[in-house]
Amino acid sequence: MMLSLLLAAAPLQATPPAPAVTPADPIEADWRTIPDDELLVMTLASGKQVIIRLAPRFAPAHVGNVRTLAHARWWDDASVYRVQENWVAQWGDANEKKPLPAGVTDRPAAEFEIAAFDPAVRMTRADPYSTASGITADGWPIATNGRQAWLTHCYGMVGVARDALPSTGSGAELFTPIGQSARRLDRNYTVVGRIVEGMGYLSGLPRSDAPMGVYATPGERTGIVSVRLASDMPAAERPHFQYRAADNPRFAAAVARRENPDAPMVSLGGAAVCDVLPAVRRRP
Amino acid sequence: MMLSLLLAAAPLQATPPAPAVTPADPIEADWRTIPDDELLVMTLASGKQVIIRLAPRFAPAHVGNVRTLAHARWWDDASVYRVQENWVAQWGDANEKKPLPAGVTDRPAAEFEIAAFDPAVRMTRADPYSTASGITADGWPIATNGRQAWLTHCYGMVGVARDALPSTGSGAELFTPIGQSARRLDRNYTVVGRIVEGMGYLSGLPRSDAPMGVYATPGERTGIVSVRLASDMPAAERPHFQYRAADNPRFAAAVARRENPDAPMVSLGGAAVCDVLPAVRRRP
Repeated sequence: MMLSLLLAAAPLQATPPAPAVTPADPIEADWRTIPDDELLVMTLASGKQVIIRLAPRFAPAHVGNVRTLAHARWWDDASVYRVQENWVAQWGDANEKKPLPAGVTDRPAAEFEIAAFDPAVRMTRADPYSTASGITADGWPIATNGRQAWLTHCYGMVGVARDALPSTGSGAELFTPIGQSARRLDRNYTVVGRIVEGMGYLSGLPRSDAPMGVYATPGERTGIVSVRLASDMPAAERPHFQYRAADNPRFAAAVARRENPDAPMVSLGGAAVCDVLPAVRRRP
Repeated sequence: MMLSLLLAAAPLQATPPAPAVTPADPIEADWRTIPDDELLVMTLASGKQVIIRLAPRFAPAHVGNVRTLAHARWWDDASVYRVQENWVAQWGDANEKKPLPAGVTDRPAAEFEIAAFDPAVRMTRADPYSTASGITADGWPIATNGRQAWLTHCYGMVGVARDALPSTGSGAELFTPIGQSARRLDRNYTVVGRIVEGMGYLSGLPRSDAPMGVYATPGERTGIVSVRLASDMPAAERPHFQYRAADNPRFAAAVARRENPDAPMVSLGGAAVCDVLPAVRRRP
């Protein structure tokens, strides 16, 4: 839009200089290391690992519970016990009866909403579930209705399963959206993180046709060997991950190009916030 | 909106009668049978079946090719050869070298767009990839930018794989989105249908880490035993499916309730068109 106005104002006979193109690739400084106590390593029975980045800034009480549960090795005999097509994969104690360890708050206050809508990059067009959305400087997808703000339930985000309201869940039972969209869970469930590696080991699991996608028999479940905070692991075994920060012109350019890709692709003028989640990589 | 206006016009001192609630459940007449020649039955090596509803009204040339390919049994030794995490599952001839049968147009004209934006139910809020969207009377998700209209690349829709533009693909290689959103393919690829049963047999397949998610070895592929038009199958073997029509107040009420669910769920005021695809059932 800006470009069109500038061109229109330029003398018609002059060829304006080509605008400097902002590179859309990150530079090294754009990669920020995720702290060890914000990284959860879930090892499945197959030996495959699912890595979760935690969001303590947005859901401190529930993330606190998750850390305590991991530290207490509460999930070491847990399983992925629910995989519902085009909806969620869920893990924890399949019987939901195992006592919680000391230090875990059974019913923390809801953390469905966050303090402020402060994206570093705003999406050009609103999405159907909010009036504005964007990516925070530290790489989280957020949305607002002009009053509240919240972390969005994108594919691969990690939410806290709960009973009917007013329960907010403890964090012992977690889920991740594996289908089209769980955005209608926004502001109805607490989001505690995002799967940053190994999502395919959950999204690719066999679906259950039983009610709510809960496997009908124990044999269908995927065993969980362990869930550890990276900070609880021996230094030599700790994985290290970095997220791409959004508070720089390179990320903004990358989003702009996703919204308006180069020809011959037709430009649709917008993109959903869940479709521009910043890349995450293992620390080189 | 209409309701608010009516209430505002009523005398302030009178308590208006509670509005009659439109039921959101379909009645029998809302179920419309899908014609036998618009139903494709793909049988995998496991014996599981994936059922596809074709969209000849929107992509007649490409659906024509698909019908000819099925009639010629061209896919009977095909496979699902590409499963890319949070993107697509794709099937056809893994080597993309098998000659096409007589009657298949190798390069039909693009059918990326459709004739008219004529939804029976419009979504309250626009989505980031269009300026308006909705569901047609016959159950298809469409969107518009005010000039063109198009079928949207929702999870489970079936698109025609192609080489770089201006290729539109023949229809021999097909894909379905298995992740968050392939909406950025809108108007860039031809949509020929929607998977209406058995989606989990594709979305639950192991992901490939090879480039573009194409399985690196033939052993990883999922064999396809056959793909048949229902109208080519013996009458006794034909499945029969019905879609829920959208041209009635019951479907409109169902969409409205998805956009504004009952408390204690927080209402977000909108929903994405891909999240309200009409139900499809086997004919009772």
